[in-house]
Amino acid sequence: MSEFPVGEFLFKRIQELGIETIFGVPGDYELALLDLVEPAGLKWTGTPNELVGAYAADGYARQKGAGALVTTFGPGELSALCGIGGANCESVPIVHIVGYPTEAAQKSGNILHHTLGDLKYDHYVKMSSELSCATTVLHDPATAVAEIDRVLNAMIYHSKPVYIGISEDVAYAKVSVSTLDKKLVHSLPVGDLAVETRAISDIIAKLEASNGAVIIVDGGANRSSWAPFVDPLVDALKVPVFVTCLGKGAVDESSPYFGGAYGGIDSWPNVVKMVESSDCILWLGRLPSDFNTGAFTEHVNPSTVIDFQRFSIEIGETKFDAKISHVLPKLIEAIKGNASLTSRPTRPLVSQPPLPRKPASDLITQDWVWERLSSFLKPGDLLVSETGTAQFGVLGTRLPSGASHWTQAVWGSIGYATGAAVGASIGAKETGKFKRLVLLTGEGSLQMTIQAFSLLNRHGIVPIVFVLNNAGYTVERYFHGWGAIYNDVPDWDYGKIFSGMAPNSGARGYKITKRHDMDALLDDPEVQNATYPQVIDFALAKDDAPTPLKLVFKGKKQG
Amino acid sequence: MSEFPVGEFLFKRIQELGIETIFGVPGDYELALLDLVEPAGLKWTGTPNELVGAYAADGYARQKGAGALVTTFGPGELSALCGIGGANCESVPIVHIVGYPTEAAQKSGNILHHTLGDLKYDHYVKMSSELSCATTVLHDPATAVAEIDRVLNAMIYHSKPVYIGISEDVAYAKVSVSTLDKKLVHSLPVGDLAVETRAISDIIAKLEASNGAVIIVDGGANRSSWAPFVDPLVDALKVPVFVTCLGKGAVDESSPYFGGAYGGIDSWPNVVKMVESSDCILWLGRLPSDFNTGAFTEHVNPSTVIDFQRFSIEIGETKFDAKISHVLPKLIEAIKGNASLTSRPTRPLVSQPPLPRKPASDLITQDWVWERLSSFLKPGDLLVSETGTAQFGVLGTRLPSGASHWTQAVWGSIGYATGAAVGASIGAKETGKFKRLVLLTGEGSLQMTIQAFSLLNRHGIVPIVFVLNNAGYTVERYFHGWGAIYNDVPDWDYGKIFSGMAPNSGARGYKITKRHDMDALLDDPEVQNATYPQVIDFALAKDDAPTPLKLVFKGKKQG
Ligand SMILES: Cc1ncc(C[n+]2csc(CCOP(=O)(O)OP(=O)(O)O)c2C)c(N)n1
Ligand SMILES: Cc1ncc(C[n+]2csc(CCOP(=O)(O)OP(=O)(O)O)c2C)c(N)n1
Repeated sequence: MSEFPVGEFLFKRIQELGIETIFGVPGDYELALLDLVEPAGLKWTGTPNELVGAYAADGYARQKGAGALVTTFGPGELSALCGIGGANCESVPIVHIVGYPTEAAQKSGNILHHTLGDLKYDHYVKMSSELSCATTVLHDPATAVAEIDRVLNAMIYHSKPVYIGISEDVAYAKVSVSTLDKKLVHSLPVGDLAVETRAISDIIAKLEASNGAVIIVDGGANRSSWAPFVDPLVDALKVPVFVTCLGKGAVDESSPYFGGAYGGIDSWPNVVKMVESSDCILWLGRLPSDFNTGAFTEHVNPSTVIDFQRFSIEIGETKFDAKISHVLPKLIEAIKGNASLTSRPTRPLVSQPPLPRKPASDLITQDWVWERLSSFLKPGDLLVSETGTAQFGVLGTRLPSGASHWTQAVWGSIGYATGAAVGASIGAKETGKFKRLVLLTGEGSLQMTIQAFSLLNRHGIVPIVFVLNNAGYTVERYFHGWGAIYNDVPDWDYGKIFSGMAPNSGARGYKITKRHDMDALLDDPEVQNATYPQVIDFALAKDDAPTPLKLVFKGKKQG
Repeated sequence: MSEFPVGEFLFKRIQELGIETIFGVPGDYELALLDLVEPAGLKWTGTPNELVGAYAADGYARQKGAGALVTTFGPGELSALCGIGGANCESVPIVHIVGYPTEAAQKSGNILHHTLGDLKYDHYVKMSSELSCATTVLHDPATAVAEIDRVLNAMIYHSKPVYIGISEDVAYAKVSVSTLDKKLVHSLPVGDLAVETRAISDIIAKLEASNGAVIIVDGGANRSSWAPFVDPLVDALKVPVFVTCLGKGAVDESSPYFGGAYGGIDSWPNVVKMVESSDCILWLGRLPSDFNTGAFTEHVNPSTVIDFQRFSIEIGETKFDAKISHVLPKLIEAIKGNASLTSRPTRPLVSQPPLPRKPASDLITQDWVWERLSSFLKPGDLLVSETGTAQFGVLGTRLPSGASHWTQAVWGSIGYATGAAVGASIGAKETGKFKRLVLLTGEGSLQMTIQAFSLLNRHGIVPIVFVLNNAGYTVERYFHGWGAIYNDVPDWDYGKIFSGMAPNSGARGYKITKRHDMDALLDDPEVQNATYPQVIDFALAKDDAPTPLKLVFKGKKQG
């Protein structure tokens, strides 16, 4: 009977999830384990620190369905926790593998480095359990395989992070290769088909009775599992489709049915009107958090909403035990086969948000730049936008077809976008779909995790980074502390830093303050098709913000 | 009756601890609270990210006795946890203040940003409680003052981190100014004087009976509380004094009694002999962890050891309920008054470690550089050395008088040194003792938290950074994975990055590969007295290490 090490079993399982690249930072408790990464057919990508590693694994998982991170006991794993929290909050499946001291060392009674010095080894797993849907620390090779499968299956089921602690001795204990024969449970269990059928016929009935159905594409419930059905649904139903902040990127915005961004008060008035007067809203992955809803200013009649969630579909008052990823494809077929729905005339679409008025001066404004980006972007671009004004502003940018877009609108950890951009790009490269990376970030956020940039270069990913340089934490200023020093951020020379972190990449930095210079830059084919990293650091007034953001804060005293 | 806000009470208490500067990153849940920092007489220092903030607070606390960090609920606080873990492990008192959503928002049933989306608000405090000696989340202004005092008193007593969660509404609730009349309990309670007296007379008796007493200065038990008594003890007793890795910096190494570093096998043979044949070892703050003891290779007869701890003194088999910070000053007086001890001839001192043989080539080796540093350093320099080869190597550098040195030898989180250097420098500046900052770090570690450098510049601290550039995680290679890609680190241009992060500082980078160039650089008065930041990036062979480290790994297969 052929055998292999437990650690290799673990990495083979990870490969089974579709993961090709693992992120992390080495440490002596995990080094031997890392020797098993390549034999299992995976690639290792070392990250400059663990937080960047966690963000990268998250971006990768959003793009590819699941991600993995390896860190070392104590300092390593704790440095990653903010990233794991984000994955929990936004339903991103990541397996966090932590290298533990050997069983013998744990039992020695000696004070080991990376411990708290109190001879206890369960502090950190307890901490991670607050952020994970399942955890295990492998102590016994005899149960290791079952434990790994239990935890990975929970990750797939809940679409949340999990934690696996493993020491060198357990990693090298031998188990039968036949443990791989039984597969992980790769999709959600099929529900009660009668319930699904009833849900679908109720939805069809509601659509038939409706005069103004719309679709809202949101970000909840692990977007990647149902996103592939969004464009087919729109094409079948031919009704206006809107995105929330979290949902942006999951629908083809070059579609004639695309109506713009919806988020209560932070949307354009014509969008608000169309959505809030609709008698039937198909809401995919609804996630009613503050930033995602214009601070709870959505005024939608609950009886008009069909709420599609990971484990339930709610039609008005009735909740069905049915799953979005199972129901959507069937619903599309049902629509296609329903002449009364498909033969309806296309309703006049919401007009695009009006072009922001030409600014009086040649200075760059937020509204101008977000609109301007629409024509700079190319089909297939990968966009990642950061918490801060960028996350709101990008709602005014229309994505070209085949573009992806990710943002972390509930967890909202600044620095995330730069790290996630690395992982998302690597993931996109693996699927053969990668073209350009466009990173949209404030300078305060970029400074958090700027070292991630070095990784982009290592992987031959050529980014265009837009740095919204407004002399500080502008979105915070809108909340409070208009002129407070705690909202100031020092000025850096990003071009210099980028080329310092990627000495042979030919990285270029542009410092732009005028609209016409930005126009010239974005029109330049050399810039558009560059084979070297570029960072466009452009000046914005300290108090400028995208109109949607201003709307949210309207009435709040500033200054 | 005069009143003021709870938040101001909190910051006034922090000021009472001797803290003048607070570190952190703003977030909307904490912005209003931050408005109370200055009215309380404190200075705010925003850090580029929360981990750097935690490390800075730790470095500051080591220098000044206590430190404070403010972060925002969720992403902010979780990003700091690795730094809090380090403070717990190495007994550094830090108060971690976290800005919470208001009580009303918590009770609203709405999904708030920075939560996990499950409407629970106790996940993060539970996580921090694993790393803190006391935690509180203030919900009620009526008990807030008592809670704050309870937690801060625990911090002082245990010399460990604590956690205070506070929302804007509680921060602005009014309490009487007279709450400040009662003070915190600033020192450890006086113990049983009879026990102390007995301990001291037992120690004196043991010293009188001894022929070869030595002192070992270690790092446990919160060094800053007893460090001021170390030099007086050495001067009184006139016996050889050694430092461990953790203790380095707590004794005047220009003293004629200084004998070098002790850590089992990772010390020079003459040191091992002198310590391990001693019949009476006064061991201050002993902390027998792996990295601090040459991987448990200290062979000391327990009956010869007098072990001074925070809450106990152990003489051979007898444990006294007495505290190092109370006993040391009295012991010094007792020694001074004891003619039989003070009249003893000074024993011949351990000779200094032999000068490493002149390297055959002009390449820089670790042993050469650590020895070379001894003559570069100046009285009053502040050194911070990083986990990795630097932490071991610096044991071979002799510090000038009045120098400080900090390293994190048990927790061992790489990236710490760069962040802690900021806080320690700011702390040293406040005490009026700051001269130069010398940061000793590997390139892998520097890349973790390089943004901290920007802060140094903001505070007018002019560092000299030595980057041990050995193409990767060399200390990890000694553990495992001699040529493995996971131990590789990309090459950066640190001079460029530093000047990018401090555009107007005149920062200079030097890339050095030859011994004679390093000599010329270190001999240059311009370099020695520079008023601009400098980074000396010097090449070392991938497999070179300080002799002490090689000794630890001797016998372990490499490659
Ligand atoms: C890890 C973390 N720390 C702090 C915050 C609080 N926070 C939210 S947005 C923001 C400012 C972002 O500033 P910047 O990136 O410059 O973007 P701007 O709003 O100026 O465009 C801060 C500090 C956070 N969300 N996450
Ligand atoms: C936060 C954290 N992550 C990972 C580790 C594991 N680790 C310990 S030392 C080290 C390498 C340090 O390399 P470098 O700074 O280049 O110093 P060198 O040993 O090469 O001198 C690593 C990765 C750690 N101690 N802390």
